[in-house]
Order: sequence, then structure tokens, then C-alpha cells
Amino acid sequence: MTGKPLDEDEFMPLFEAARWAPSSYNNQPWRFLYATREDDHWNAYLDFLSAENKTWAKRAAVLVVILSKTTVDYNGEPSRTHSFDTGAAWQNLALEGARRRLVVHGIGGFDYERAAATLSIPAVYTIEAMAAIGIRGPAKSLPADLQEREEPSDRKSLDDIVNQGAFDSVSEEGDE
Amino acid sequence: MTGKPLDEDEFMPLFEAARWAPSSYNNQPWRFLYATREDDHWNAYLDFLSAENKTWAKRAAVLVVILSKTTVDYNGEPSRTHSFDTGAAWQNLALEGARRRLVVHGIGGFDYERAAATLSIPAVYTIEAMAAIGIRGPAKSLPADLQEREEPSDRKSLDDIVNQGAFDSVSEEGDE
Repeated sequence: MTGKPLDEDEFMPLFEAARWAPSSYNNQPWRFLYATREDDHWNAYLDFLSAENKTWAKRAAVLVVILSKTTVDYNGEPSRTHSFDTGAAWQNLALEGARRRLVVHGIGGFDYERAAATLSIPAVYTIEAMAAIGIRGPAKSLPADLQEREEPSDRKSLDDIVNQGAFDSVSEEGDE
Repeated sequence: MTGKPLDEDEFMPLFEAARWAPSSYNNQPWRFLYATREDDHWNAYLDFLSAENKTWAKRAAVLVVILSKTTVDYNGEPSRTHSFDTGAAWQNLALEGARRRLVVHGIGGFDYERAAATLSIPAVYTIEAMAAIGIRGPAKSLPADLQEREEPSDRKSLDDIVNQGAFDSVSEEGDE
């Protein structure tokens, strides 16, 4: 990413797309905290990240912490689908970013506990992931080992993930 | 939905869209089991559903059980993001269905335990949700109480779900 800031009207539509995801009982458990590189919180957000993720994410325009509420609004009971539903909202955010030619990169390598404490996240919410949003920069601005990874990643085949009927014929590849 | 069957080439692209979701370490924990209304498994899938969901889902063309693998392929450790990642794949599936003018309806009201037993789902996988895919039928084919719900549902405002910086100013509406 280039390190160039984004205006609010360039990144808020990504949250708007996330907002419309479907969820069980329309409970909408997703919440998003963010910092732009001009915010007081920027360095704190950046410091949640692992050293490796910092090397590239420091040139993002926006860092996001994705939360979900673990209980159902209308009855306070534990929600079975809060993470799954929030994953749907996250995919909408990422797709809207891609549609706008932005880089949107999900991040799992960060200190969940420190983020929860620093951002005063109540116990009824859980952190699902972080994400970095920015403008695509030249691959050569990355460390050499990350430059090599700047190509599309493959996916499992449909046969590995889809099966008609019961589970027994789904591929068990990788189950060791 | 109309009860009209779908050909494989009409619904397999939805799984193809799901296949390309992003996931932590590209672990792709999503798995999909399905039955079409012409399959031996159709009645079993339908019988997982709550009585209310049966009233409309019986006219779907495809019923899907969405699973996620709870461990990471490469090291066998528990995955923190399996549900979240699978939610992303589910959103892709639903969006591809919408793009094709199909109805794709997520379902949480079903017997998770019975589905796991009937479909021989190994313990390392968990059931996230079900979904019904079909061709939109007239609202008047639904029971009266469901006809009334055939309108777009609202969503929380951006102010309710997005906050700059720490958590403290995110709306706590509905937290009681």
C-alpha cells in the first residue's frame, strides 16, 4: 500500500456495504472500530499487529478492528451465529473495497487481548479479526519475502468443499 | 419459492463464489453439504428444519448445510476464525445467488444435533447454518403471517456499528 490517506467518503462506503449483510434474526452483531493514519489511535492500532504484519500494514490508510456481539439483542441469550454473521459483513466490506480498487486485507496476526483492553471493548463483544484498507502500492515497496507472496492464492477445489447428501464423501484431505 | 428444481449449472456457481472467500492462512474452513428436491436426502434435510421454516423451505430447490472445520489444516491447532471465515464464504454464496435472481435464505431454526448425526459430520467440523436456494414464487403462496414479512428488513445505522478509535462511543442501544 502507498501510505496515502483516504478520505472518509472513500472508505465509509465499505462499512455501508457491511451494514447490509444478512444475520440470524437480523441481529446484526458486527461492530467496527477504526483508526486512520492521521488519528491519535493510529499508533495503538498499528502496535496490536505482529512484527511481520506491521511491515506492510504501516502503509495502510485505515486499520479496522472487527467485533461481534456475542448475545442476541432481543433476549440477551448467547448468539450461536455472531462470528458467522460478522464474517458475512466482513466479506461485504472487502468486496466493496475491491470494487473500488482498494486493497482490503484481513489480519489474524495481532494481539487480541491487548486490542480488547486498549479499546475498552466490553466483555459481551469479541474480537473477530483486524483489517487494513489502503491504496495499492508497488510490490517493490515490500520486504523481499513479502514481494514473493504478491500473487493470487489458490483455493481448494469444489470437490474438496461441496458434497451432495451426507458428509462421508467429502474429501478429508488435510485432516491429519 | 416456486418448488421448481434447479439444474446443477444453476446452483453450483453459488458454491464456486463461496470457494473464493478470504480466510486466515487461506485455511478455507468452509464445507457445504446439500440436497436437491429430487435427492434421497431431501426429506431428511427438510426434517432438520423447525416447523415454521418447513412451511416455506419445502418449496426450495436446494437445501444446504454449512459447516466449518474447527482446526487449522497445516498444524491441527484450533482455528480462531473458522466461523468468521465461513461467514465470508456464505456471503459470497448469497450474493452470487442474488446476482442470478435466485432466493437464497439463511436458516438458523433447525436441529443442529440431528443434522450432525444424520449427515455423519465428524467432530472436527461444526454446523454454522443452513440455507435454502430456489426460484422466487408469489408471496401469496406463503402462510398469511409470512406474507406480511415479505418486505426488506431494516438495518442498524452506521453510527450504531462503526466507531473511530476506542469502543466507548459506539452506541449501546439494545444492550440490555
